[in-house]
Amino acid sequence: MAETRALTTRAADFSAWYNELIARAQLADYSPVRGCMVIRPNGYAIWEEMQRALDQMFKDTGHQNAYFPLFIPQSFLSREAEHVEGFAPETAVVTHGGGKELEEPLVVRPTSETIIYAMYAKWIQSYRDLPLLINQWANVVRWEMRTRLFLRTTEFLWQEGHTAHATEAEAEEETRKMLGVYRTFMEEWMAMPVVTGRKTDSERFAGALRTYSCEAMMQDNKALQAGTSHNLGQNFARAFEVTFQTAAGGLDHVWNTSWGVSTRLVGALIMTHGDDAGLVCPPRLAQYQVVVVPIYKSDEERARVMETCDRLKRELSAARIRVHVDAREGTKPGAKYYEWEGRGVPLRLELGPRDVAAGSVMLARRTGGKKEPLPMEGLVATLESAMERMHTELLEASRARREAHSIRGVTKPQFIEFIEGDGGFAYGGFCGSGDCEAEIKEQTKATIRVLPDEEFRSLVAPTTCMWCGTPSVAEAVWSRAY
Amino acid sequence: MAETRALTTRAADFSAWYNELIARAQLADYSPVRGCMVIRPNGYAIWEEMQRALDQMFKDTGHQNAYFPLFIPQSFLSREAEHVEGFAPETAVVTHGGGKELEEPLVVRPTSETIIYAMYAKWIQSYRDLPLLINQWANVVRWEMRTRLFLRTTEFLWQEGHTAHATEAEAEEETRKMLGVYRTFMEEWMAMPVVTGRKTDSERFAGALRTYSCEAMMQDNKALQAGTSHNLGQNFARAFEVTFQTAAGGLDHVWNTSWGVSTRLVGALIMTHGDDAGLVCPPRLAQYQVVVVPIYKSDEERARVMETCDRLKRELSAARIRVHVDAREGTKPGAKYYEWEGRGVPLRLELGPRDVAAGSVMLARRTGGKKEPLPMEGLVATLESAMERMHTELLEASRARREAHSIRGVTKPQFIEFIEGDGGFAYGGFCGSGDCEAEIKEQTKATIRVLPDEEFRSLVAPTTCMWCGTPSVAEAVWSRAY
Repeated sequence: MAETRALTTRAADFSAWYNELIARAQLADYSPVRGCMVIRPNGYAIWEEMQRALDQMFKDTGHQNAYFPLFIPQSFLSREAEHVEGFAPETAVVTHGGGKELEEPLVVRPTSETIIYAMYAKWIQSYRDLPLLINQWANVVRWEMRTRLFLRTTEFLWQEGHTAHATEAEAEEETRKMLGVYRTFMEEWMAMPVVTGRKTDSERFAGALRTYSCEAMMQDNKALQAGTSHNLGQNFARAFEVTFQTAAGGLDHVWNTSWGVSTRLVGALIMTHGDDAGLVCPPRLAQYQVVVVPIYKSDEERARVMETCDRLKRELSAARIRVHVDAREGTKPGAKYYEWEGRGVPLRLELGPRDVAAGSVMLARRTGGKKEPLPMEGLVATLESAMERMHTELLEASRARREAHSIRGVTKPQFIEFIEGDGGFAYGGFCGSGDCEAEIKEQTKATIRVLPDEEFRSLVAPTTCMWCGTPSVAEAVWSRAY
Repeated sequence: MAETRALTTRAADFSAWYNELIARAQLADYSPVRGCMVIRPNGYAIWEEMQRALDQMFKDTGHQNAYFPLFIPQSFLSREAEHVEGFAPETAVVTHGGGKELEEPLVVRPTSETIIYAMYAKWIQSYRDLPLLINQWANVVRWEMRTRLFLRTTEFLWQEGHTAHATEAEAEEETRKMLGVYRTFMEEWMAMPVVTGRKTDSERFAGALRTYSCEAMMQDNKALQAGTSHNLGQNFARAFEVTFQTAAGGLDHVWNTSWGVSTRLVGALIMTHGDDAGLVCPPRLAQYQVVVVPIYKSDEERARVMETCDRLKRELSAARIRVHVDAREGTKPGAKYYEWEGRGVPLRLELGPRDVAAGSVMLARRTGGKKEPLPMEGLVATLESAMERMHTELLEASRARREAHSIRGVTKPQFIEFIEGDGGFAYGGFCGSGDCEAEIKEQTKATIRVLPDEEFRSLVAPTTCMWCGTPSVAEAVWSRAY
């Protein structure tokens, strides 16, 4: 049944808009299991395209995939003190298996450092076994009280990279390299600009030495942590006794990194590009980049039009354009336009008998501009360049929006007004004190997203903490966040 | 460290050979979690190739991927009476989440019929929503007391297709179609011949109307159930109230099918083709189809040889041959040959300064024949045809081996001698009685693998049950099995 009621607008209620869009585009659904979502085919197709692109980037940087157990003995989690403190409160615990109570309860993995480094201890003997560069695509579970589709669910899908190195410098290089891979993916595939930088101690991954993050700004001006990369130092190597014989003949603990992105990225994509008509999918990640809608009144017209549609499909497919011909009978073209618009398909081609006769086709772009007739001749190149332009425009528009909602060199009163107004990214000096950070969070709900990397820093470095006025140790980016 | 001890031979101890092969080729490892395995990169790469091929076949037959929750409320499992009886005893149960005891325990999915059909009840309204053709790639958990790497583990990876149809005939057609897809995959990708047919009631999926299976014979002459496809009738539709408005305006329950294959296929591949030197990977599923080993004594030679290796890699990659240049320093060519042989790489190219000068390269095939020099000219075509031939030979050899260990028209004494001797597939008449079936299983450990499809049946149909002598209702294939 075609749903034709307009979505709540983003301006009226961003959160309602988000939920309605997901329902309309059939991206996901609530399940009967508390906190768990169902990713429907339309949403899963976006995740598959994301996986395909990321997986290739991981392999191009020398990583291999593997698979480790879903269950982790409860005692493993406790071996790294910070780690257990961070994750134990949100675990799901299996206490019974095969009809019997287990001797030791098993935790459903919230992340896999412990079980993976327990295996690395077996596999790594010598510096010749390093670096060990492994990635896993998996489901993980973190018990959440307040859930939102894609953004925060008890179970989610992700990838987690886990590497082991012979030196601290190599581990740091890997941590930064994978942050760069994430940034490239977010910009070049998702058309989503991010600010990169280091997390403060209070936002660090439980058990890491340093955590780096990619932070994106959603259309409600809130930040979303889109991907993180952790330098774990030797913390887990010590906890799991992952040692290796060095080239010089000594024995040392390995240096580890871990890094991950999740199905949360689908939520980020929606909130970065969606509009009041529905999803806007960046072309490189769209399941269908082009949808062709045939228009006809009689069987005779249908035959002629469908013949051209089929030819179009062959030509575009041969050029590796992902194309779908919507040949459903009993659904009017207008209803089809409406549905594909809601699902965010970048380009729509409308084809009727007159177009066939004229050797042309009507193009409608998802992100505006008038419909325009295109000659069939050279269509592949025209569509490819339309998609390239769309990608660039989405990226540029998002970046311009982010900059329009960023404020630099804030004072405390400016900061409060900004955060409690429309919000966005506030750049200012930070004294480095966790207490000061906690006070800001308590009073404004804003957190330090990152201590930004050099290219994102303000031209004039702040000298004092924007909140407490003592000397600044680093510039920080504050925002309310998902 | 290079392991150079020979594997236990298949003839000496098939089971030891299997375990040693997996360790040597680094395909998988035991984990500290009872019954759970780690799939190492070399093993996971085979699974990835399997996934790639199967996923394309599913999509080509109109299916889409989606993702459903890992957890299933315990009460859901009970709604279909046979289903709960079949699966409840082997479930892992989550009783605590987020630090609290749950009101209703959650089962870690052993299979997803219940949670998926609960969602279908929401999504399906009318005949226009049918057929609904969805597949899921996921991990599942079945508590196993005796586990074997790949073949039987508490957690395993699989795909499960779940479809809903308007008529019984369509559901039956889908069930058979997907069995055919599995058979095609097993023959054309795994080079593993299978006997297809229907399971008896005692071996039917818990909750299904009819179960069909692909049965392969391993090198120890035991059967391995490699893939199953179930016609679920309206059993789950009734349990979960999945109804739809028919074209005629009435209300009916949908007709469901489900079908799955798992990482068990990696075990099947090992036991179908492996030899006493290690894994033999059918070329279409090999991570690396061709490995190039450079041979040199001096830096000057190395430079010349590596230049040619790199050119070879570009040429073969451009032709979509998966090629790896093993440029490791400090490892001798002989050690590399040994390692790649153990990992089952179909073709190995050896390249030294003399080969470079002669414009040739030395080819070694994993499955025998002498090494032979090949001209660089036309190498792509030569390698492609070598792989095609290898695929065909593996398939034919496996089929010949199966037929050599099959016996038809057995009498009871012949059957007992055959099963308690070398074993294999015994074809004979079956009276249709579950009691008779159970007695045979108890006395010989042999089970009916399938009531074979027509093309596998004997030319002369049996008239009496090979065991009890009463009239036969169908020909059956018995074997001991994994």
